[in-house]
Amino acid sequence: MTVRPFTVKDYTHRIERALAEVAAAGLTGLLVTPGPDLVYFTGYRPTAITERITMLLLSLDRSPQLIVPTLERGDVEAAAGVDAVTVTDWRDGADPYTLTAGLLAPDGRYAVTDSAWAMHLLALRQRLPAAWFTSMTETLPMLRAVKDQAELDRLAAAGAAADAAYDEIVHARFTGRSEEDIGTDLAGLLRAHGHSQVDFTVVGSGPNGADPHHEMGPRAIRQGDMVVLDFGGLKDGYGSDTTRTVHVGEPTDTEREVHEVVRRAQQAAFEAVRPGVSCEDIDRVARTVIADAGYGEYFIHRTGHGIGLTTHEPPYLVEGEHRPLVPGMCFSIEPGIYLSGRFGVRIEDIVTVTATGGRRLNNTSHDLRVVA
Amino acid sequence: MTVRPFTVKDYTHRIERALAEVAAAGLTGLLVTPGPDLVYFTGYRPTAITERITMLLLSLDRSPQLIVPTLERGDVEAAAGVDAVTVTDWRDGADPYTLTAGLLAPDGRYAVTDSAWAMHLLALRQRLPAAWFTSMTETLPMLRAVKDQAELDRLAAAGAAADAAYDEIVHARFTGRSEEDIGTDLAGLLRAHGHSQVDFTVVGSGPNGADPHHEMGPRAIRQGDMVVLDFGGLKDGYGSDTTRTVHVGEPTDTEREVHEVVRRAQQAAFEAVRPGVSCEDIDRVARTVIADAGYGEYFIHRTGHGIGLTTHEPPYLVEGEHRPLVPGMCFSIEPGIYLSGRFGVRIEDIVTVTATGGRRLNNTSHDLRVVA
Repeated sequence: MTVRPFTVKDYTHRIERALAEVAAAGLTGLLVTPGPDLVYFTGYRPTAITERITMLLLSLDRSPQLIVPTLERGDVEAAAGVDAVTVTDWRDGADPYTLTAGLLAPDGRYAVTDSAWAMHLLALRQRLPAAWFTSMTETLPMLRAVKDQAELDRLAAAGAAADAAYDEIVHARFTGRSEEDIGTDLAGLLRAHGHSQVDFTVVGSGPNGADPHHEMGPRAIRQGDMVVLDFGGLKDGYGSDTTRTVHVGEPTDTEREVHEVVRRAQQAAFEAVRPGVSCEDIDRVARTVIADAGYGEYFIHRTGHGIGLTTHEPPYLVEGEHRPLVPGMCFSIEPGIYLSGRFGVRIEDIVTVTATGGRRLNNTSHDLRVVA
Repeated sequence: MTVRPFTVKDYTHRIERALAEVAAAGLTGLLVTPGPDLVYFTGYRPTAITERITMLLLSLDRSPQLIVPTLERGDVEAAAGVDAVTVTDWRDGADPYTLTAGLLAPDGRYAVTDSAWAMHLLALRQRLPAAWFTSMTETLPMLRAVKDQAELDRLAAAGAAADAAYDEIVHARFTGRSEEDIGTDLAGLLRAHGHSQVDFTVVGSGPNGADPHHEMGPRAIRQGDMVVLDFGGLKDGYGSDTTRTVHVGEPTDTEREVHEVVRRAQQAAFEAVRPGVSCEDIDRVARTVIADAGYGEYFIHRTGHGIGLTTHEPPYLVEGEHRPLVPGMCFSIEPGIYLSGRFGVRIEDIVTVTATGGRRLNNTSHDLRVVA
């Protein structure tokens, strides 16, 4: 399936929607730096994020301005959304902060891209001591969280590609091969199914599966291992991220039980998804199932995270995140149980919020799959 | 050549030296976030830099503290320098900013890693309204600029490997092959000579060479082309970065003249290197040679940048950088002339400052090399 390229109209629409949120939040504007926020508003992704400042200014009081190093001007002009903004470049030796500050209101209130360099922010603050700055996450965390239809199409296609990769990997031989071998296979399958970038291929076999941060290693997989497979990347610019836990040979009763608890937690959290429910409520639903089964202390991370231009972004399904779910949001639901020194289980789907509930973008079976 | 791994002693020594600079600058401490600064002080490089805060606190008033997400604790404990710091982890759902702020002085003065996320800095500011923050570049820009002997050995080895790649690529056939083909060859050669990571392989043929930001494209290289080759990456954790401009077949008189101007500018700047000379002076020396030859307006970038754990760091050889050169600093000297629509020329060596002058870490010939 080929996707329709984003147009200047798409970018203009996003900028307009963002400025409406800026106004509603009592802000003056947004300061957007390279990374997914800048891609979202302009389609521009510099080759590298460096000490040379690149910043998009979206303000209520003037048209969109993109400040870029002179060296990048050519690349910027090739970006799909460049016609929605005015580009101003600065040369090495010039003071880009004074130039940028001159486009801001001295007493303005600005939300800044989370990952903007502290160096740039501090330099702007020095020149605008009466201005006030806040992070996107603090003030407008949901700016990119609600996806439009063209974005949802891309996320669904990325999810389907990840599912296709899983459907193939379960037919591979696991016994005697290393985690790295299986991870390499998975990466190849993601690429074969249209991913341009593989962000992670976690293969956590046996005790390694009990460390949710373990990626993969030289360990040879053997009969009797649980194996956590968590993989994803970008397809047409949008993310996939799914986890299934498989078993090499027949599982024990305990392994089946732990897997079943995680499956029920994932299912319950999914069924709780609908507009208006808070992010932390989804986390609580999953956590309650696991705690009630006696494994509460072994579920040591939040239940999920948003996905879009990145594989890790708001909304976060975590205690303390009171904001409500809104149709168009996309996030992972990925409860897990980690039994140190023994094995781990995690099941993860990407889910999008619809008008009446949730829709899975991953659709492979949640049954504990036995592999060879 | 194998390199000696860095030890806890190396990291402790770096921390002590940094704290001496902190005291001399009238600061309370340093806030170090993932990236080269954190690698420099601890050897720890997280798999990804995310919204979960990881921060090393180096303060005059307490021992070094490393705050990490619980999920990363295992990885941190495997880092070479971990025994030089106290590790504290925080779980999803906890407030890591209150934890971190509790380890800082309420009225402290802290320098922050340049690329620290604005989100983290703003959250700490909120909890410590009387503290004062500045960027490393603003206050301690030269923290990693002066290399110790073990670092110099790595940089010299990376430079020699890049030279070996150049010595081989000039024997390749250029005519009829694409820039991307040559770039792929160069990347393979860098890896063959021990690079673990290739950061860039610029192949700017004909008019593409006149855009200093051009990387490489499908353009087929033809007889009569100037070709800018600018490539580098990391070997044993330290960077290489060198540029030579070659010519396919016999150059014209103008091409020879432009190349000779750049060669003289590079040589003059190199000869000006010695302790005490300012960074901007080196830039001026190169710029004067090019301006005197009538090409001043076509030299559109600074003369150079530092190199170490990254291929792009202080010191910057640019107008306005008044700080003096110090023995052990390493940086590029890379003047260029860019004739829009026609061709470009750049010559770049990494140079280190010695007690009495400069020493090149790239040593291939600066003559205009004719390739086939």
